[in-house]
Parts: sequence; C-alpha cells; structure tokens
Amino acid sequence: MFKRFSGARDALAILLDRCRPLSRTEKLDTAEAADRVTSFDITSPVSLPGFDRAAMDGFAVRSRDTKGARPSAPNFLDNFLPLRTGMEVPKAYDAVVMLEDAQLRGDVLEITAEAHAYKNVSRNGEDVLPGDVIFRQGHRLRPPDLAMLSALEISRVEVYARPNVVIIPTGGELVDIGARPLKPGEAYEINGLMARLYAEKWGANARKTKIVPDDEGLIREAILANPDADMIIIIGGTSVGEKDYAPRVLAEIGELYVHGVRLQPGKPTAFGAVAGRPVVCLPGYPVAALSDLYLFVRPALKKMAHLDDSLPRVPAKLARKIPSKAGYLSLVRVALKDGEAEPIMISGAGILSSVTRADGFVIVPEELEGFEAGETVEVVLFE
Amino acid sequence: MFKRFSGARDALAILLDRCRPLSRTEKLDTAEAADRVTSFDITSPVSLPGFDRAAMDGFAVRSRDTKGARPSAPNFLDNFLPLRTGMEVPKAYDAVVMLEDAQLRGDVLEITAEAHAYKNVSRNGEDVLPGDVIFRQGHRLRPPDLAMLSALEISRVEVYARPNVVIIPTGGELVDIGARPLKPGEAYEINGLMARLYAEKWGANARKTKIVPDDEGLIREAILANPDADMIIIIGGTSVGEKDYAPRVLAEIGELYVHGVRLQPGKPTAFGAVAGRPVVCLPGYPVAALSDLYLFVRPALKKMAHLDDSLPRVPAKLARKIPSKAGYLSLVRVALKDGEAEPIMISGAGILSSVTRADGFVIVPEELEGFEAGETVEVVLFE
Repeated sequence: MFKRFSGARDALAILLDRCRPLSRTEKLDTAEAADRVTSFDITSPVSLPGFDRAAMDGFAVRSRDTKGARPSAPNFLDNFLPLRTGMEVPKAYDAVVMLEDAQLRGDVLEITAEAHAYKNVSRNGEDVLPGDVIFRQGHRLRPPDLAMLSALEISRVEVYARPNVVIIPTGGELVDIGARPLKPGEAYEINGLMARLYAEKWGANARKTKIVPDDEGLIREAILANPDADMIIIIGGTSVGEKDYAPRVLAEIGELYVHGVRLQPGKPTAFGAVAGRPVVCLPGYPVAALSDLYLFVRPALKKMAHLDDSLPRVPAKLARKIPSKAGYLSLVRVALKDGEAEPIMISGAGILSSVTRADGFVIVPEELEGFEAGETVEVVLFE
Repeated sequence: MFKRFSGARDALAILLDRCRPLSRTEKLDTAEAADRVTSFDITSPVSLPGFDRAAMDGFAVRSRDTKGARPSAPNFLDNFLPLRTGMEVPKAYDAVVMLEDAQLRGDVLEITAEAHAYKNVSRNGEDVLPGDVIFRQGHRLRPPDLAMLSALEISRVEVYARPNVVIIPTGGELVDIGARPLKPGEAYEINGLMARLYAEKWGANARKTKIVPDDEGLIREAILANPDADMIIIIGGTSVGEKDYAPRVLAEIGELYVHGVRLQPGKPTAFGAVAGRPVVCLPGYPVAALSDLYLFVRPALKKMAHLDDSLPRVPAKLARKIPSKAGYLSLVRVALKDGEAEPIMISGAGILSSVTRADGFVIVPEELEGFEAGETVEVVLFE
C-alpha cells in the first residue's frame, strides 16, 4: 500500500526542499560555456573598448578646430587623420567628423559642420570599465555573453557543474531497445531513453544503467553502485501491487518521503533519498512517467543546475471541455490546431500515442474540476 | 550608398522567399534524432502492445465465469492465471480481475466483482496498429516520440539535414579571440562566435572561416570556397562607408536583394544570393549583428530546417516608456525585474553590455513610435 499519499503540489515542495543547487563547479573554455551558469561574479580585467575608437568612417580632428563650421562657412584644417570605423582616435584628436561633413582638398580638409568634443568617438571604457561586474553569480551564459567575455579577454570561465543523473530502469519484462525481437509479455525499455533525453535538455548529464530485474537486492545494489549521482531516477516498479520494490528499498537503505501522489496520470510515484541524494521513482507507464518528469524531475533538475524552471507556454482556447478529478492535479495532453487546444481524452497511462499526437499539455490545478470549452488556457509545449 | 533601403518586414519577406526548406535528408539512429524533423510520414510496422496485456496486477479469467459475482455472492473459479501488470493475457482468457476483487482459496479463486470482456486488458494494437501513421512528414521529434519509435522497433529514422551555415568574419581590425594581445585599433572577432552558437541553437550546423581582410577579392574567394553552404553569413563590412565590400561582391558574383534595412539597431544589413544560396551580410557592431540574427537569420534558418520559428515570449508591463523611430522596426533590450520590463536605453550598437544586462527584447513594429510606460508588451527572451 502507499505509505503516504501526497497532493501533487505538496509532493513537489517536498522534493524541491530536498534538492539543493549544486555547489560543485568546473572551469570551461569560454566558447564551450553556452547555457552554463556562472558560479562567481565575473568582473572585467580590462576596459572595452580599450582605446578611444572611431564610431564612424571619417576624419579625426581637434574639436576646437571645427568651431563655427557650417556649409556656407566651412573651416579648413591641416591637422586631421582619416579613420575608418573602429580605428583608434589618437590622443592628439578628440572628435571624428563624418564623411558627409568633410571634403579632402589636397592636403587640407574642408569641414562643414561643428564637432563637439568626443563627437563620433567611442571612448575608452564606454562599454565596460576594469572592475565592472559583468555577470553576477548564477547567470546563464547566452551566446552574446560569451562574446562579451571573449571581448574582455576572459578565455576560461568557472561555472556550476551539471547535475549527474543516473537512470535505473527496472522490470523483468523489459528488453533493451532493439536488442532482440520481443516475446509476448515483454516490452522495450523506452522510458529510460525518454528520461535521459529530457534530463539532458534540462541541464543535466544523464546516463542509464543496465535494466535491473524486479528484485530488491539488485535495485539496492544499483542505487549504491552510483555514489556520484546527484539524482537517481528509478523507473518502473512503483505500482501498489507486488512490484513495489523501489520504494521499499528506499525506506530500507535511506528515506522515503513521498509514496503515491494525487497526480493524473502519475499516481504511483515515490520520492526519497539515499545518503542525502534525491531518488525519484517513476511509474513504468510511459505517459505517467512523462507526467512525473515534467512535474517533478524538471523543476528539481533545474534547481540543482541553477537554472530557471519556467515552462514554455502558449495561450490557447479550449476546443472542448476538460474534465478532471477533484483533488488531483491533472496533466491533459492537447493538440494545437488553428489556435485552439484540442484535448486528447484517451485515458490509459500506457497509450503513448496520446503523447506523440499532442503538442503539449494543460495543467489542471488540484482545486479545479477541469476547464470549460472556450476557456483560454495555458498550453505547456513539449520540449 | 545603400542601393535599396527596405522596411524590416519587407526585407524579412524577401529573405524568407529566397530560403527554401532543405530537401536533403539523412538517416540517423532513433536515439540520436532528438529535435530533428521527419522527412517522410512514418507508419508503424507493428502493433502496440503486440499482445493482449494485463493492465493491472491480478488474475486472468474468462469474463463469462464472473457473471453475477458480488461481495455477498462470490463466484469460485478454477480456470484462472495470476498475472502482473504488463504480462500477456493468454487467448484462453479475456479479462483481468484486480487483486482487490479476488482472493486465492487454495486452488480456487474467489471473486467478488463481475468483469466484462477485456476488463483490465490492454488489447493488442490498442495504442498503435500496423500501418498507422505515427508521425507526419515535418514533425519535430521530441523525447517521447523517440521512445515511441523505439517501442515500434523503428531503430533508424530519416530526417531532414540540418542547414550548413558558413560564417565569414571580415575586417582588417579583427584578431581571433585570445590569439594575441590587441594593439590599439584592433578588436577580437566575437560576432562569429555569437553567430555560430545561435545558428547551432536554431537547428543548423555552423562553422566559421578564418577572418577575411577588407578586400573584395578575398571576400569573393571566401564565398566561392564554400559551395556546400546552405547559407553564408558575412559579418562586418556592411557600413555605407569605404568598407562596403560584401554587398558589392554579392552584386558582382550573384544577386543583391536588400541593401540597408529600416531596423534599429541593424540598419547596415544586406541580403543576396550566390549560386542560389542565400547570403546575409551583418553589421560588425555586435548589438546590431544580434538584432539581425534574431530578426532575419533565425526565421530563415528555422524555415530551412523545417522548424517552427515562434519566439519564446513572456508578457510584462513596461517600467518606462520606449521611444522609437517611426518607419523603423526597433528591437529594444529590456531587463525583467519583479514582472516589469525595464528598457535599457543605451544607444550605440557597439555597447554589448546593453545586451548582456538584458533578459530579452521588445519588438516595436514599424508603424508605432514606441510604447508607453505601463503598457503590457511581449518580451522575447534571449535564448
């Protein structure tokens, strides 16, 4: 029997409370650090630009020499320097006159517009000064950020390690994908692939162990054989029936916090910890496993990885009513069509085609009993 | 001078019109095909499940033997088979009675509830039948989709090739990142890194050539040396001044469709084609280059890669007014803070810190002159 039976929101809070942002860091080449998160404030060692720079193609001049210049009364300068955008404006000059306002007449420059001091000059340090904090700790590095670090001659950057996720598929009926033809009663182990690909999308390093039979001793061994895991995901073996091995193992060698969640689909879910490391037990039915991955594993991994966990959502009008069970949080798959969300009302957590035909899902909170046709809902798009 | 001067929306339409979805395909292992796009309809060779399967832990029975069974008047069966979830229900049976409704009494099963035919049985083909179209051509493969293909014993999948993008940085002042300390007037070539990382995020294979000096002959050579490119991005050398090499080269050896766009920042932009392949010339200023990448390169690459190009957006209230130039499409960088969007009103397309401090940007359409403080706008989040 389920030892605990938690509301989905409570279960998530319990899990998140047990998952700490990793403190482990690593140093990477800046060009390899896309989507990684800074583990320290980063300050600039240099100024950017590192010199007074022409912001236009034109001529470097002394601004005082341009006083009063206008088309009807141009000034004629013999102290000037032709420059192209980006070139250094030497100290002897303090402005750049653009091509449209200047005309070379032999050795003399005719200018027809005044230029105030530093006109068309990007000044040394205008963008960044030495000591400026460029990124705070906890900043996800995006392509322009890596460009900035490169411009500042910061070639290596310290970032948080990605969480190591170890996925343990359990079940005597499972066969590795494509390993051999199935006999009746067997199934390919596909949930591990799905969990691994999502964990990687969500900022983790993920690896899968061999399939573990329904055996408490072997499940315990598989958990203990992976002490470097920041999170362990056990798939299968969480139903209330005979196969309820993984939660029993957790209770025995660690702690079992949550066992059974009011989530539809995804009820046979358990959370615990072994040696302080979170262990998540997912149901073996793929639709239920996916529901748990999105609702629990995603925010947990994002937290451990110091990443924002907001979901990609689009608003859409419901084409039909969505019923749901009161007291249960429900994830209802929907297909988007002409701006409307069409619920895919196939029940059965084993019907994977209800996912592959869906563009995303609608979350029905525990306190509601569904949504009416025509209501505007937020659709979470499958990543 | 700019030969053409296009509105941003028109320029995008012209570019998209010249970019065709790639017809080139490749075959990948299913597990490696995440985020790739199917190039054919995929039909199932098998049924799923491939046999009648127990949907519950319990006992396989003949439904007719359960007729009338209730707690006060149980039926006693001697023809039954204990099964666990997922196991085959042999042909001799047509229903599964769950544990709660059954009690083993020696060799006899006492059951206390009727089971109609196929109760608690996932029937052969209930999820997928042989010949079912699982994915239409043009479907982006997500982790559960790869799980489905694996379940259907489809181990290789044919997908569209990723577009090959070749990035040619131009400019005599540029130095490879970290290659050596800069002299005054020099800058590290950082736009190529930014363009490469974004092109990869957006579904392309991207590579950068060596930095090409400001020389028409060498730029022409660099373009012609990459005949396998599906798109060429030339960075720098698109200002109206002396350095306007790339567009001249395009006009000479191919076609120049757009030269100058009413986009802020990002005006000195050019689009053309050489031997039918699109060539995009981006300004050398990083903020302007980024603006062009998002507005033009992203939808063009997504189209070539058969991917949806919708932008990740969140609504936010403007903390301050955004002014913009009428007739120009503007990308205004904003930082999100407490649900409000704070515009970063630093002008200067060279000020990269205006990007690195931003969470995203607001698009001001050409026909507007900005947004008022307090208006709700859509913020496009930097990927």
